[in-house]
Amino acid sequence: MGATPGVRGGPPFRIGLLGHGTVGAAFAVLLEERADEIERFNGQRPVISGVLTRSQGNFEEILAGADLLVELMGGTEPAREYLLAAMRSGKDVVSANKQLLSQHGEELFETAREHGVRLRFEAAVAGAVPVVRVLEESLSATPIERIHGIVNGTTNFILTEMSAGASYAQALAHAQQLGYAEADPSDDVSGRDAAAKMAILARLAFGTPVHLDDVPYEGIEHLHGDDMAYARELGLGLKLIGTAERRDGGVSVRVYPALLYGGHPLASVVGPFNAVTVESEAITEITMSGPGAGGRQTASAVLGDVVSVMTGGARPPAPPLSLPLIEDVESAFYLHLDVADHPGVLAAVTQALGEHEVSIKSVVQRGLGENARLVMVTHPVRESRMSAAVEQVAAFEFVRSTPRTIRVIEEEFI
Amino acid sequence: MGATPGVRGGPPFRIGLLGHGTVGAAFAVLLEERADEIERFNGQRPVISGVLTRSQGNFEEILAGADLLVELMGGTEPAREYLLAAMRSGKDVVSANKQLLSQHGEELFETAREHGVRLRFEAAVAGAVPVVRVLEESLSATPIERIHGIVNGTTNFILTEMSAGASYAQALAHAQQLGYAEADPSDDVSGRDAAAKMAILARLAFGTPVHLDDVPYEGIEHLHGDDMAYARELGLGLKLIGTAERRDGGVSVRVYPALLYGGHPLASVVGPFNAVTVESEAITEITMSGPGAGGRQTASAVLGDVVSVMTGGARPPAPPLSLPLIEDVESAFYLHLDVADHPGVLAAVTQALGEHEVSIKSVVQRGLGENARLVMVTHPVRESRMSAAVEQVAAFEFVRSTPRTIRVIEEEFI
Repeated sequence: MGATPGVRGGPPFRIGLLGHGTVGAAFAVLLEERADEIERFNGQRPVISGVLTRSQGNFEEILAGADLLVELMGGTEPAREYLLAAMRSGKDVVSANKQLLSQHGEELFETAREHGVRLRFEAAVAGAVPVVRVLEESLSATPIERIHGIVNGTTNFILTEMSAGASYAQALAHAQQLGYAEADPSDDVSGRDAAAKMAILARLAFGTPVHLDDVPYEGIEHLHGDDMAYARELGLGLKLIGTAERRDGGVSVRVYPALLYGGHPLASVVGPFNAVTVESEAITEITMSGPGAGGRQTASAVLGDVVSVMTGGARPPAPPLSLPLIEDVESAFYLHLDVADHPGVLAAVTQALGEHEVSIKSVVQRGLGENARLVMVTHPVRESRMSAAVEQVAAFEFVRSTPRTIRVIEEEFI
Repeated sequence: MGATPGVRGGPPFRIGLLGHGTVGAAFAVLLEERADEIERFNGQRPVISGVLTRSQGNFEEILAGADLLVELMGGTEPAREYLLAAMRSGKDVVSANKQLLSQHGEELFETAREHGVRLRFEAAVAGAVPVVRVLEESLSATPIERIHGIVNGTTNFILTEMSAGASYAQALAHAQQLGYAEADPSDDVSGRDAAAKMAILARLAFGTPVHLDDVPYEGIEHLHGDDMAYARELGLGLKLIGTAERRDGGVSVRVYPALLYGGHPLASVVGPFNAVTVESEAITEITMSGPGAGGRQTASAVLGDVVSVMTGGARPPAPPLSLPLIEDVESAFYLHLDVADHPGVLAAVTQALGEHEVSIKSVVQRGLGENARLVMVTHPVRESRMSAAVEQVAAFEFVRSTPRTIRVIEEEFI
């Protein structure tokens, strides 16, 4: 693990590694494997000059002996403190820490800018899929309109299993068995993990600060097998989607389960994969997909960041803009109602919806003895109006269970 | 068009533009739209300081007055001569010219390296899909095993129409009507355009020189509606695929129509889109997709390159490796035979195939009066063996028409 001298005469490029868990260990192995090739391209050999774990190493010494710090500890503290200290001493840093970036991003960006150092974090979102770099660099001259992302592989795996007929509990158990979900899966299934990643992507795409707390999120725990079946019937797929988009002069960022039309580029993303679609008038749309996590994939993204710093291919972040965050946006909705099978029920429901300017695109009504199921898809409507309409409908005496809504994303391009 | 002074006091970043056709004009418009934003991020305002067309401008003057040349003329000469002259005078260059890069890439790379200047060409492959940058930078530390690409939107559009029942002639006429195909479509439908792009991607992925002439290509003109129908029956999609991969200690690069299993990431790419899948043990696989062409999309990729040069985010190319180019590789094949419906025909065919070590994975035989159709899919076999086997089968007196073969790509990941 300790410093290996550079082979080609020149001094080695010294990397201080903070954290030696799954990703840290995979990074050390990958670096060792690729050091020859990196030296061939860049003339400098990257070596790990020090490792900090809970039980070993001294941060100050590691910092003093490194050209670059790689932070793979996770969590906000002491990772934040270490990264700030490194940048203040003029060192470039690479991190894979989505919690930290989504909660303390502005402080980190500001410090990087002030000290003229690079802060890279490709691995914080979508693993080896180079969405961070593409937004920061390839598309830096492109006015981005919208990002839709499947940025949590655990929930995408669970929803894929559910669409094949598994219950939520069965799918979650299978995900845990395969190592795709933690023993406590709440960060993934609640949508919070995806919200952190969308906060980071929104910051990159629109240049305005977005904190995790600014991102409303809804998870997948409440989805029913019924809804999956109706989705199939309507020709729709069900995914946990993160959206970051320009709306009404500001920016809206949110995470929610969504029904996607079959032609949407994210509709075909199955299993524990991640995918991000970037829309812009100038480029129409670009989609990038790949495995969302895994120690070696994440390590590969981290190593790409290290090489970009070695080759001077990164720059300090630009100063932030200040765009308002818009909360109440328009969506189309799927609405599921269990109702008594009386004459006039459909008329009462559609009238209530109409009073809130919710207009219906399609309806399926199905009798079930004394009851009936109404499944509707609406035209796009402001979410506050939809909530008010659903509240009014829920109060009808003929409604037999709590109405369920899921947002619908329609194909807008091609 | 002429030089606009920089607004924020500092000197402007002067761009000499060679070529003012569809892409050149779109680039000038996009640059104008984005100049404020680029200046905000980089402190320097990009301006077009001179334009060379067939009828106006003087190359030497434009070169002398520019910080960077953008070449959007197309064709090999005089584009090659101009880019070499610019780099020899120490200027960075951006080009969208796939012909030039696939035929004179090594001379251009060598000149860039010798003079320490940047040579960027994102727009030469897959339009706004940032595959060049991702290979050059994000994945520069990743040992790439294979690239599969749909890198010609014209042929993908035609094949999409054919899979919906159109004949080749109908689909081509429709593509021409929509502006997706040229009046003379031979460069696209022959596979030559895709071969040029794959030569460029292979050079980036594997670091070894690959010339357009090194890339065997086969087009889509000879594909039958029959084959599309059988493909559907077998659950396969038919695409024009470019492959660049490590094989037998060397590199194989080729373009060919291929049947893809439904789960392959490229199987769902329809219409005039491009997509590239990069496979590596360290990253599993990453897929990037988007519109393949269009003036504004291409201009957007060119502008991304310009910004990368302004921000110092690119470096001169590395010296080449020298890996052998492997021609005779293994593929699975679809084989279509029209035969007389006699007893013993299937036995004779399978025996002939077996003698060349071609082993059959699946067979569909269908009687048609006195004749029958045999449609087979083989296990992977060296292409030279398959050719020899098909030659032997074609000589049987009971074979009624020339046998047709199409390569098959099986799902290898997930």
